[in-house]
Amino acid sequence: MRLSQLDLQKFFHPKSIAIVGASTGEFKLGGTSFMLKLQEGGYTGKLYPINPKAKEIAGLEAYPSVLALPEVPDLAMVCVAAKYVPAVLEQCAEIGLRHIHILTSGFKETGLEEGRKLEIQIAAVSSKNKLLIIGPNCMGPYCPSSHLTAWGAIPGLSGSIGIISQSGGLTQRLTEYMYHLGIGVAWAVSAGNGTVLTPTDYLEAMAEDDSVDVIAMYLESVTDGRRLLDIVKQANQRKPIIIWKGGESEAGAATAASHTGAMSGEKHMWEAFNCQTGVTAVRCMYECIDAIMALSMLPAPDGKGVFIIGGGGGNSVSYSDTCVCEGLEVPPLSDVTMESLRQSVPLAGSIAGNPLDMWLTFTDADYLAGVLKLAHQDPAVSMIVVDRLIPRKAFHMPEMADPNPQVIAFIKNGDHQKPVVFTIDADGGDTELAEKGAALRAEFCSAGIPVFPSMRRAARALSHLYRYYHRRVSHKSLL
Amino acid sequence: MRLSQLDLQKFFHPKSIAIVGASTGEFKLGGTSFMLKLQEGGYTGKLYPINPKAKEIAGLEAYPSVLALPEVPDLAMVCVAAKYVPAVLEQCAEIGLRHIHILTSGFKETGLEEGRKLEIQIAAVSSKNKLLIIGPNCMGPYCPSSHLTAWGAIPGLSGSIGIISQSGGLTQRLTEYMYHLGIGVAWAVSAGNGTVLTPTDYLEAMAEDDSVDVIAMYLESVTDGRRLLDIVKQANQRKPIIIWKGGESEAGAATAASHTGAMSGEKHMWEAFNCQTGVTAVRCMYECIDAIMALSMLPAPDGKGVFIIGGGGGNSVSYSDTCVCEGLEVPPLSDVTMESLRQSVPLAGSIAGNPLDMWLTFTDADYLAGVLKLAHQDPAVSMIVVDRLIPRKAFHMPEMADPNPQVIAFIKNGDHQKPVVFTIDADGGDTELAEKGAALRAEFCSAGIPVFPSMRRAARALSHLYRYYHRRVSHKSLL
Repeated sequence: MRLSQLDLQKFFHPKSIAIVGASTGEFKLGGTSFMLKLQEGGYTGKLYPINPKAKEIAGLEAYPSVLALPEVPDLAMVCVAAKYVPAVLEQCAEIGLRHIHILTSGFKETGLEEGRKLEIQIAAVSSKNKLLIIGPNCMGPYCPSSHLTAWGAIPGLSGSIGIISQSGGLTQRLTEYMYHLGIGVAWAVSAGNGTVLTPTDYLEAMAEDDSVDVIAMYLESVTDGRRLLDIVKQANQRKPIIIWKGGESEAGAATAASHTGAMSGEKHMWEAFNCQTGVTAVRCMYECIDAIMALSMLPAPDGKGVFIIGGGGGNSVSYSDTCVCEGLEVPPLSDVTMESLRQSVPLAGSIAGNPLDMWLTFTDADYLAGVLKLAHQDPAVSMIVVDRLIPRKAFHMPEMADPNPQVIAFIKNGDHQKPVVFTIDADGGDTELAEKGAALRAEFCSAGIPVFPSMRRAARALSHLYRYYHRRVSHKSLL
Repeated sequence: MRLSQLDLQKFFHPKSIAIVGASTGEFKLGGTSFMLKLQEGGYTGKLYPINPKAKEIAGLEAYPSVLALPEVPDLAMVCVAAKYVPAVLEQCAEIGLRHIHILTSGFKETGLEEGRKLEIQIAAVSSKNKLLIIGPNCMGPYCPSSHLTAWGAIPGLSGSIGIISQSGGLTQRLTEYMYHLGIGVAWAVSAGNGTVLTPTDYLEAMAEDDSVDVIAMYLESVTDGRRLLDIVKQANQRKPIIIWKGGESEAGAATAASHTGAMSGEKHMWEAFNCQTGVTAVRCMYECIDAIMALSMLPAPDGKGVFIIGGGGGNSVSYSDTCVCEGLEVPPLSDVTMESLRQSVPLAGSIAGNPLDMWLTFTDADYLAGVLKLAHQDPAVSMIVVDRLIPRKAFHMPEMADPNPQVIAFIKNGDHQKPVVFTIDADGGDTELAEKGAALRAEFCSAGIPVFPSMRRAARALSHLYRYYHRRVSHKSLL
């Protein structure tokens, strides 16, 4: 179904929302939590709690049904039990309320006849009345710029990433993850069973929406595969589309059927899909967020040669292996660069070359800037990965000034045409290291500079970046 | 060269150490930092700083050379510049000091004729005088039980892991990582250029040392491949041997030559080596530490069927995919288990099965214990992965008691024969999440329960565990 700008407006920038099934009792997931989160999140439109047994909920006047509302709200969020949903939809139709999100689960994903029948009823009511329905069995719409953040208390940052997902939990985690790295979202939708509006419908709308620069999808199943393929193929030419396909294994597919009640299709079909569309195919949440960072923050690389800076001898060896394993190259530097490096890198205990193993790159922002300038001028280098160190007890390091603000400023303010990313190793059980690592990642990422927690993830993300702009390498090489 | 118990004793439990080249000037890596770290780390033996220009260093009487010492120390740590090293070795030989660690770099790893010649001289002096030399170009010995921790200020925990590495930096990070997860080390050695004692020599000694249960090696190159193969093949039958081979790519091999001055061998040779020996082959530091945890903390699994507990719908699908991708199975549970689960798992919003998607497993330790009991009795289940959640703003969760101490106690005190591991997702830029995640990992791991920061890493580690005990799956399937 084609979603026009008007329809998107009412779903993601509603002036008023009816929460059908807001409860008066204890706090639980559903109507009341949605209401509270919208209030906390700073939603400025009208909220209408609907509950036949309440006069007031969370300080707002409650109404017995949508029929009793003083106006037709832009959006209804339906949270009543599954068996009551069809009747609620009929009432919405009666007042001309066409934009509906159904949180409720208990439909075909249960595998039971009753749930299947209820879902058919939803489809029928919708079709008869031209309703636009997100769900059922999902967390629905999310849009930071209109403070539509019913998923949680995360305020959310407005930005240019679009997210379409068949998992509410994963979308919630993904938006939360992005928020803490300072990456903004244009709009996101948790699609659930997709009875009326499918992920393909949202994708088509996102592809045409100029406020969205990069689209990430989590898909378990597709009912309109041919249409999805056509849209992805075209849209991916204009903006990067990342697809994380869940249920690629038999065991995963079986779970997907219990999750959103749909078949997830065969693995080889998806491999063909990826090849034909040139989509950026990822396989877990971390790879998805890493691809989002690379594709939204970095310029196109002109080749696959990576220059690796810092890390120590063992890491230099291992990092090279990792980059090559991920389909990149670690080429020798040009003579000009090497000549310059040899002047500053001591013969013993350091390594002048690619990777460059030189302690000063960790501690001295001016030195690092000099090395980066050389790299930007070196035709052998297309992308740059710089290792950052969190100073800690294990290192024989005296107190020193934090070089990172200067490093960030140098990269942010420079007119450099090559992608530069960082790695920060803060893994393990050291709480101080973990905290400092997370803070430093946020500092870089919020400035628009991608940071990855391992070379594996950095290399994989740069590989996605390279392949998006140079379709020469087939997708399969990364599987 | 065969290292006897006596030799190990003097290297890793020295009663006295001469630090040759302790400097009087500013703090820098080398003699003085070694001395200070040994003092900080609680080393109780005698320390003899050697410096012809000093009377006293760090509160200790200094000596002009080892010739002037009042006794023959058990161990010399040599930190003078490369060109002075041969003369120092001659002096050591003169007083019968046979156990020597050379920190100094500037030998064959420089690729220069001068360095190559100096290294040949070291070999010659050593051979003539039957010296035992760790290095040069390395961080040397480490042994928490004798407070021999010159690498850093980490106190280190005594335990049963042995580490042999051709990278000082990586060994330092690995031991630090293990320390923060409460994993103890028997002894570790950074081997450097391996001019006299090779990684194979250390391995042979560790294989015969009953205080070592699991051995992890970082190797860049091997000069005695046939002997290494024989020792690994035999020793791996008695205790798990993990090898992380750096320099498997051409680019990595080139760096390895600059790092420790040796050729790293061809990739296909190493693949054959892995197949023939049944060694646990890993490819990065994280995979190495994960394999150490799995192989040192867990019992042998009787099959490759994994039961996945908790996570949400999308994660359940994705986790299944990941396990299958790593060579494991996610089998249907037995009828008995399913009958029990159906009684407690609601039809809507949760999934009874494998994976089990049930909110209570996160919040209710008793409920989780009940599920774990079912799993331990289910013949379809060989290994169990439980997802843990760090409560945070994004979840609609009221204040609740921390279930984790009870969960840890249940697993620790139970007489369960199946491996149980946990996953904790704390990645990203959220400092509170990162800190809490690291603390919780440390809490579980210190109790002997492995925790991994992602399902990918948990599944890979369990796959290593399975394959160590069931050699049916060839190593290649994981490459």
